[in-house]
Amino acid sequence: MDKEKVNIGKIATLINQHNADLIAIDVIRETSKQTIRDISIKVSNEAVQIKVIDALKETEGVHVKHISDRTFLIHLGGKLEIQPKLDLKNREQLSHVYTPEVARVCRAIDEQPELAHNLTIKNNTIAIVSDGTAVLGLGELRPEAVMPVIEGKAMLHKRFANVNAYPICLGTKDPQEIIKTIKAISPGFGAIHLEDIASPQCFEIEETLEKELDIPVYHDDQHGTAIVVLAGVLNALKLTKKNLEDVKIVVCGVGAAGIAITKMLLAAGAKNIVGVDKEGTITSEKQYDNQMWQWYASQTNADKIDGPLNKAMENADIFIGVADADILKVEDINRMATDPIVFALANPNPEISPDVAQDHVRVMATGRSDYPNQVNNLLCFPGIFRGALDAKATTINDEMKVAAAQAIAETIQEDELSEDYIVPGVFNERVVELVRNAVYQAAMDSGVSRKL
Amino acid sequence: MDKEKVNIGKIATLINQHNADLIAIDVIRETSKQTIRDISIKVSNEAVQIKVIDALKETEGVHVKHISDRTFLIHLGGKLEIQPKLDLKNREQLSHVYTPEVARVCRAIDEQPELAHNLTIKNNTIAIVSDGTAVLGLGELRPEAVMPVIEGKAMLHKRFANVNAYPICLGTKDPQEIIKTIKAISPGFGAIHLEDIASPQCFEIEETLEKELDIPVYHDDQHGTAIVVLAGVLNALKLTKKNLEDVKIVVCGVGAAGIAITKMLLAAGAKNIVGVDKEGTITSEKQYDNQMWQWYASQTNADKIDGPLNKAMENADIFIGVADADILKVEDINRMATDPIVFALANPNPEISPDVAQDHVRVMATGRSDYPNQVNNLLCFPGIFRGALDAKATTINDEMKVAAAQAIAETIQEDELSEDYIVPGVFNERVVELVRNAVYQAAMDSGVSRKL
Repeated sequence: MDKEKVNIGKIATLINQHNADLIAIDVIRETSKQTIRDISIKVSNEAVQIKVIDALKETEGVHVKHISDRTFLIHLGGKLEIQPKLDLKNREQLSHVYTPEVARVCRAIDEQPELAHNLTIKNNTIAIVSDGTAVLGLGELRPEAVMPVIEGKAMLHKRFANVNAYPICLGTKDPQEIIKTIKAISPGFGAIHLEDIASPQCFEIEETLEKELDIPVYHDDQHGTAIVVLAGVLNALKLTKKNLEDVKIVVCGVGAAGIAITKMLLAAGAKNIVGVDKEGTITSEKQYDNQMWQWYASQTNADKIDGPLNKAMENADIFIGVADADILKVEDINRMATDPIVFALANPNPEISPDVAQDHVRVMATGRSDYPNQVNNLLCFPGIFRGALDAKATTINDEMKVAAAQAIAETIQEDELSEDYIVPGVFNERVVELVRNAVYQAAMDSGVSRKL
Repeated sequence: MDKEKVNIGKIATLINQHNADLIAIDVIRETSKQTIRDISIKVSNEAVQIKVIDALKETEGVHVKHISDRTFLIHLGGKLEIQPKLDLKNREQLSHVYTPEVARVCRAIDEQPELAHNLTIKNNTIAIVSDGTAVLGLGELRPEAVMPVIEGKAMLHKRFANVNAYPICLGTKDPQEIIKTIKAISPGFGAIHLEDIASPQCFEIEETLEKELDIPVYHDDQHGTAIVVLAGVLNALKLTKKNLEDVKIVVCGVGAAGIAITKMLLAAGAKNIVGVDKEGTITSEKQYDNQMWQWYASQTNADKIDGPLNKAMENADIFIGVADADILKVEDINRMATDPIVFALANPNPEISPDVAQDHVRVMATGRSDYPNQVNNLLCFPGIFRGALDAKATTINDEMKVAAAQAIAETIQEDELSEDYIVPGVFNERVVELVRNAVYQAAMDSGVSRKL
């Protein structure tokens, strides 16, 4: 601030006028003509923040040098660190973790490679890999720009399930290059968590790696969502006293998430699923260029319903949307069977607003934290990787995924269950343990554990 | 142990007879016929350990189920963990490190990629990458088998310089595949530390990556050794009151380490270096298939000395061996100029034993911790990466390497310097700070810093 033109009182008044609170002022540097100050301001939302900053910028004598906020401050220097498990204080300790003694451990692993699962971090470490092609709702970004997301997921893996997860962003978007790269770096990891990779390449990448690697490869955007949706569906059906085998389910949006949800529902026993995309229902009466849709048509819509969403909704018990904002109408819900169950998961704005739908549905879930029943992958990924690593599993198969969904559902006991509580909260402390135990047991029972 | 055939007294006596100490006995499981016990035994060396175990195995009634020792116990589960920098206790915190707020950070990096150096772990994280082709003295191993070494180095990076280092072992040994893989995973890292990659492919890998990436790429087996050797040479020359520009230096073993040492000495001002390999001196009078040797011949041996090691040693001031055990004879040393300086770095057995050489040399250094003047890369790599990361350097150039060597040398003050103390100890607390400061300054001065 130019001392002649402006004083701190004027600044304080300005901040106040924009409904923001002045929290603290620290002088950073002082010269005869100018003062550099660090001013902390509390704002209620981003709109207020923008207004306050604009007002400050327009004030004569004020130069805004740098703006930061809590989110950016938390990200300074990144959100993770790599720590030794034991401190090294002297030569003797050094000799055990490094030369010369470490050579005996290397030799032992070279002779008996399975020992890597005990004697290295492979035991409890996964890679979270993204090419940045489908970052949150932001679409395709530079690889570096996905780091805050995958660092965040790595934090959550550690915080919720004590899984060490290392975030790797890839400087290539070519599926074959991605496959080669992940294969090349895989020997040191116990599992691969794929994240924010766009459809359709995500299918090829995951399937090829699952086939060629002897460790689990799991695309969270597909399976995490699918597992938590199944958990919610299982609990919603308890409320409506219907069976998964009997109900008609409409899946709206047949992309990566929609296909994964359908696979999960089929694996859990659902028989009557109708997929709907922009062109209408997916049916075996038609031919599709998209190979996944060809497959989808062969597995769903036995009644060969042909038409738009509102036709598919006729007599449906469950609607699951992973498509776009506001594409579901009250009239569509009114076509459903009794006790409609609506999962409107488009982010940030659901297929129908809960405020609009509430009088017409029995149970509703969204992807949002500001409504009940949030479908949040965080309920699944820490526990499923914990269980897979503990079982030294070679894969995360359907049995393990269904077990994870059932465990999430069972976190809520029958007498706690209600229309507003079919999905546990992310800080529910029982979730990870129950998911871990169920996944571990399913790995053992389905014969994919490496344990003796 | 079968209860009828053996008792614990007999075991204790047996252990004692082999000069080992019985430390503790814990019963793990007890049945009517058998007892499973965990027996801790202290031994003075590996030979005693083998004898005690063999004796136990041969004792009737004893079944040895599993053997472990301190080194293996330390390695259980690996030596590193990945920790969040802040704990997550509630929704509000979650919203800053993850959705929805994290999206603003992603967008900012996408718009201004340099921000990745501030807002992600790239800021302070390096990859330690190995293909397992030259592990310690063990040669080529499976990729998983190099993990204990690179995990150990990652511990040391953190312990000594607060650098976060993540160990990555590669499931490919093809140089082109290695280059592609490292390029693909590079966007999230601030630097690449190559480790235990065999010659000659290590040259191609490092050179290509240095050229194509905008972050430092540094092969420790080459440069770490070279820098610490230069540090030792600088201090040894202070004792003998000779100048690097004037002395004749014989480098014995013209592989990755020998070439890197030579480059370092040349960069620091040495003029008269003669390289010797199994075939004799490297000279520009000859043609070599090995491209590196062609280059080497053009830069060294101006006098075109042609012949075996003993001819090259004539009037040499310094011998630097990175070759094989016991290839240097006392007669060779006696051919040297006054005040011979001998670096015998072959591991674990040097080119000449210090016990044999001691009466014939002025200064001697080895790679071993049980003799004075250990040339240990640990003196260099933490500080050099700390300095490069702090400077946000795009490379680790010769200026930075020479600065690191000078800093290591200067850790020992003139009045402390002696024949037995030309290289500081690895736990010397001043080393990392001095190296870091020198490397940082050299990066700024040579224009390779990304800082404004």
